[in-house]
Amino acid sequence: MSNSFGRIFKITTYGESHGPAIGVVIDGCPAGVSVDIQQIQALLDKRRPGQSHLTTQRKEKDQLIVESGIFQGVSTGTPIHFRFENTDARSRDYSNIKDNYRPSHADFTYDAKYGLRDYRGGGRSSARETACRVAAGGLALQVLNQLGIDIHSFVSQVYNIQLKDDLPGAVDYSQIEKNMVRCPDADTAQKMQECIEVIKKEGETVGGTISCHIHSLPVGLGEPIYDKFQARLASGILSINACKGFEYGSGFSSSLMKGSEHNDIFEQNSKGAFITQTNHSGGIQGGITNGMPVYFRSVFKPVATVRKPQQTVSKDGASVELNVKGRHDPCVLPRAVPIVTAMAALVTLDFILIHRTNRI
Amino acid sequence: MSNSFGRIFKITTYGESHGPAIGVVIDGCPAGVSVDIQQIQALLDKRRPGQSHLTTQRKEKDQLIVESGIFQGVSTGTPIHFRFENTDARSRDYSNIKDNYRPSHADFTYDAKYGLRDYRGGGRSSARETACRVAAGGLALQVLNQLGIDIHSFVSQVYNIQLKDDLPGAVDYSQIEKNMVRCPDADTAQKMQECIEVIKKEGETVGGTISCHIHSLPVGLGEPIYDKFQARLASGILSINACKGFEYGSGFSSSLMKGSEHNDIFEQNSKGAFITQTNHSGGIQGGITNGMPVYFRSVFKPVATVRKPQQTVSKDGASVELNVKGRHDPCVLPRAVPIVTAMAALVTLDFILIHRTNRI
Amino acid sequence: MSNSFGRIFKITTYGESHGPAIGVVIDGCPAGVSVDIQQIQALLDKRRPGQSHLTTQRKEKDQLIVESGIFQGVSTGTPIHFRFENTDARSRDYSNIKDNYRPSHADFTYDAKYGLRDYRGGGRSSARETACRVAAGGLALQVLNQLGIDIHSFVSQVYNIQLKDDLPGAVDYSQIEKNMVRCPDADTAQKMQECIEVIKKEGETVGGTISCHIHSLPVGLGEPIYDKFQARLASGILSINACKGFEYGSGFSSSLMKGSEHNDIFEQNSKGAFITQTNHSGGIQGGITNGMPVYFRSVFKPVATVRKPQQTVSKDGASVELNVKGRHDPCVLPRAVPIVTAMAALVTLDFILIHRTNRI
Amino acid sequence: MSNSFGRIFKITTYGESHGPAIGVVIDGCPAGVSVDIQQIQALLDKRRPGQSHLTTQRKEKDQLIVESGIFQGVSTGTPIHFRFENTDARSRDYSNIKDNYRPSHADFTYDAKYGLRDYRGGGRSSARETACRVAAGGLALQVLNQLGIDIHSFVSQVYNIQLKDDLPGAVDYSQIEKNMVRCPDADTAQKMQECIEVIKKEGETVGGTISCHIHSLPVGLGEPIYDKFQARLASGILSINACKGFEYGSGFSSSLMKGSEHNDIFEQNSKGAFITQTNHSGGIQGGITNGMPVYFRSVFKPVATVRKPQQTVSKDGASVELNVKGRHDPCVLPRAVPIVTAMAALVTLDFILIHRTNRI
Repeated sequence: MSNSFGRIFKITTYGESHGPAIGVVIDGCPAGVSVDIQQIQALLDKRRPGQSHLTTQRKEKDQLIVESGIFQGVSTGTPIHFRFENTDARSRDYSNIKDNYRPSHADFTYDAKYGLRDYRGGGRSSARETACRVAAGGLALQVLNQLGIDIHSFVSQVYNIQLKDDLPGAVDYSQIEKNMVRCPDADTAQKMQECIEVIKKEGETVGGTISCHIHSLPVGLGEPIYDKFQARLASGILSINACKGFEYGSGFSSSLMKGSEHNDIFEQNSKGAFITQTNHSGGIQGGITNGMPVYFRSVFKPVATVRKPQQTVSKDGASVELNVKGRHDPCVLPRAVPIVTAMAALVTLDFILIHRTNRI
Repeated sequence: MSNSFGRIFKITTYGESHGPAIGVVIDGCPAGVSVDIQQIQALLDKRRPGQSHLTTQRKEKDQLIVESGIFQGVSTGTPIHFRFENTDARSRDYSNIKDNYRPSHADFTYDAKYGLRDYRGGGRSSARETACRVAAGGLALQVLNQLGIDIHSFVSQVYNIQLKDDLPGAVDYSQIEKNMVRCPDADTAQKMQECIEVIKKEGETVGGTISCHIHSLPVGLGEPIYDKFQARLASGILSINACKGFEYGSGFSSSLMKGSEHNDIFEQNSKGAFITQTNHSGGIQGGITNGMPVYFRSVFKPVATVRKPQQTVSKDGASVELNVKGRHDPCVLPRAVPIVTAMAALVTLDFILIHRTNRI
Repeated sequence: MSNSFGRIFKITTYGESHGPAIGVVIDGCPAGVSVDIQQIQALLDKRRPGQSHLTTQRKEKDQLIVESGIFQGVSTGTPIHFRFENTDARSRDYSNIKDNYRPSHADFTYDAKYGLRDYRGGGRSSARETACRVAAGGLALQVLNQLGIDIHSFVSQVYNIQLKDDLPGAVDYSQIEKNMVRCPDADTAQKMQECIEVIKKEGETVGGTISCHIHSLPVGLGEPIYDKFQARLASGILSINACKGFEYGSGFSSSLMKGSEHNDIFEQNSKGAFITQTNHSGGIQGGITNGMPVYFRSVFKPVATVRKPQQTVSKDGASVELNVKGRHDPCVLPRAVPIVTAMAALVTLDFILIHRTNRI
Repeated sequence: MSNSFGRIFKITTYGESHGPAIGVVIDGCPAGVSVDIQQIQALLDKRRPGQSHLTTQRKEKDQLIVESGIFQGVSTGTPIHFRFENTDARSRDYSNIKDNYRPSHADFTYDAKYGLRDYRGGGRSSARETACRVAAGGLALQVLNQLGIDIHSFVSQVYNIQLKDDLPGAVDYSQIEKNMVRCPDADTAQKMQECIEVIKKEGETVGGTISCHIHSLPVGLGEPIYDKFQARLASGILSINACKGFEYGSGFSSSLMKGSEHNDIFEQNSKGAFITQTNHSGGIQGGITNGMPVYFRSVFKPVATVRKPQQTVSKDGASVELNVKGRHDPCVLPRAVPIVTAMAALVTLDFILIHRTNRI
């Protein structure tokens, strides 16, 4: 019962990696949205495998199929069904992963929880599910854009290569898509790319961080006490495969500041809006957006599938050496960028809709 | 509609800091639990103000009142109402905060969101609400303890003083309550205490990190795809006042490891259980507990209320100098320890109950 | 986890009949509502015991206590806690019902479900809980009234005495409170009253039906496919103690009409609004209000507690003769009128708030 | 956000009548269920159009496609996606219903609520959606059957032809499928069939009632206070197209009984189980099943589409005469039987799963 996300703009996803299809039902999309499917497909294309030599060479076109809820190009207020056929799920030999537990994968835990698992390509635990998030999030993003809200995600760290300044104001978003890594600084991007190429040759994998900025949010989004803006964001982000941490605003570094340094001093700008001189709050105070940019960082561990022999155990407890083949990513960060954007868009739009009920 | 947390074991809290009372309704507590109210009160006493000179001197005894759901010492399966009367909410002069927006507080955002706010003592945005979490979490913890599960939270960092090793195995939990700071290492605790004393004299505040370990969890807890164990944990922890970040297992440091270093190699222990040689996964794989200890870290920013004059604006936009009085914490970390434990207990028990529905 | 009702305007109730207190937390009341507590108390007074010789003589004043969420007479958008102290829950001898299962009460099922029960006065299964619904519903009703919406409930049948015409248009609402039975026709009311007096003397009880009309609803309320207006109404009404059935519009009698007789023909009125010439649809088409009056009927069985000896079994299965004492209603209908109104108000307001999210 | 039903065993449906496909995602089906798709298809075949001359001649085979959640014939605990392609949604002339509001259909309310509608074949408001319910309910029914629980629905009234006794004990379930009407009494069925044939010739439609019995339920299902067994049942049943009322146990007739007549006297049977001598409670006391058969009745209005000219208005308010063509049912009752069964199965299984969390 936990394959849904959101309260008003609510998505429910289904599907296994190598089954016939995966998809998402979006329930609660307001009626009257002009939907540009091409634009959603463009976001999907940033997530799809095979987009560059830095990513897996698996061949899925992730072609979006629309089956309901949109009529003559406009949302009708009824559930929208987006579906993807799994075209590259050719019959193959799964004996290797069928009986053995790959280290730091979900093979063991799915078996332990459910008593069985669809082992083909990781089944439900595969990151293939994230295509559904990107499709739904892409729709949410369209609505947000129409409301003047922008979301930009980018790679701010790969292994030990770090973008110097990833804060709002310091980043040129127009550069993000100029390189395969999706890092907005050309030099850093170049180093990240080289890093990944070396890692790939080693048969290794690496992780890193993705930063995300949300601009032009209205004041008042987020629902205390338990649905604070950051709480829901964290929940959405940490539900993404391989994500190990989340911080917003000053985040972990806030512990190294004193109160008076950390406090964001209010002032009124020339238009009469309340703004803060600094933004350690990350645009959120008391769980509610204050009109300043929201920004957060998420960390992704290195992909568990490496091209090296690894020790593990079989279902029966026998010690085995595992040699995983298949076409996997040396670094998921570039492909995770649209997923982070999608989750941020889903959270934001949902809060916008809920917020309409807050005043009589 | 967002003052509830949990799905089966579900809490709903109410109450403002300086209103007549605050409380929590726990809906979904299984029937048949022998409830030890003293033990819950003991957890509450770790959160209550005035417990040491390191915390606020506000005088609230946080005396737990039970009004339903427990009959002859045993839970009946009906809603449990825990309530606290606000005894120290004496009438006072609120003019200072009534019309002015304290920096990095929720005054502005509540006003902006709702059009008005109960300004007395921070109203609903006050951390006073966390007493309700601790009461409910204390009950959850009792159930977990009866099932053999232990949760230990402790302060692992205050400002620039850091506990060297906060991982499971490296911490002597029996030491946590031996000092006012709730850091399990005596020397580090002493330094933290001195740090807070200095900060307090300066009229400043500091933040830090709290680490939490959950031991003896069954395999199989957590509900993919959107209710992964870590996602719900993060949501609960980031809903706590002043929390700015969350990481579990290897967390942010995972980005500095290669895949084969990070992977946790499976083996069978002498009892036939599947364990991993390392635990970078933090006891969670694919969003589901794998039987290894779950551990996570959360960061808390410095308290926004400082004893120094600060610039801000009034509701009308006028520039004012703010001099906040009242009895506030120089560092909330020691008092936040039971809150982190409580949220972890609420999440864990809820997943245990949900997990009962996963197999036919 | 099932003591909540509503999605946006959401209530959670707690409390046992003879415990220290009962109450309700209303989460999601919009901010900015001017709350008239006296008016809510007036609705509560229609439900409270001891209001006439037709009802139980139990003495509960059901004095509403407000503990949060309303500041200076206005709702703040935070949870509202309404509470009632149980003043008439004097210590008494419960041995009779402690070990025996009263026929058609919930003693057996609570024991069977939870393994134990708070047997004092029926515990959680007592209709005392409905005071909480009336308090919350009374608040909802105030909001609705401010929006121009009216709800009128009344007794349309007691045992074999039936109001001739209970449809919108045929009822003079100003007469409802003119008699103890809450039937809008004086003659019928008189007969109903006499009927109840006879029944009371017999030591018996009777049931009947309550009709409810909702006027001036906006078009568009109700959320297909599963939250149709009538589906949620039915759920709310059938959750009331002793209710055995629900019908709306033409209801059960619709089966005796042909399609062309039953169809409500559309036309435009002088103001350009779409209306229907008849209203067999009961103001709801496709689960959505069409602007015509919503009306429905609910039936309540005779109270299970009779003043006659009854055979039953004890917990241990022994056959026993039961002689229940205590102060019970010969007919709950008059006191159930405000409960039906309250549930209708809760449903309606919730749908109004949700409907704000239906269009971009 | 209201296209979901259930809490643990939770379904979400999507799709319009004449779009490319409709479907349902079942989230929360326990892992380990052996699924017999043929058996689900058999239930679907009872709902599908064209099954006899009494029903619409529209040609949809309602061929179930399984796309996820079942692996090697067994449920995996992940979402199950059932899908139906709309094969008979040929391009046609919709101008008649595009601009005009058919009486007692949802054309007007959908337009009013959402600002637009997919008018092809009724779009989302079409009863075509119920195929999804039957598929999901058919799966639930399989699980229930494996647990020894039986559900039987049948037509107990068509227009003025009524089955004499529709109570548990009086009905021979083996006869239900022996006739086109699905009435368990051959003579009554014959009269019903003749009635429908006459009505069809007239170009008219009729409604009626469906009765449902659930046998061998465990004691303890249903979640007071707001999720009582009957409340959830009523909600599910009243969400079915054309349903106008619901009663369980003695239902509306309970108002004509005195308390001591209505009370169900407990006794112990030879196996030591608590049973009641009568079953006016309909197997439910205090919202919780007591182990006796659950039975309820639901009424369906005559189909709104008649083969006669009707007055109505266009979107612009112009008066128009409507002559609807297409292939519609003179009486939906026979096809609604599996839908009632499906909803009852969904409710029952959900409560069984939830009930597992009620005791420690």
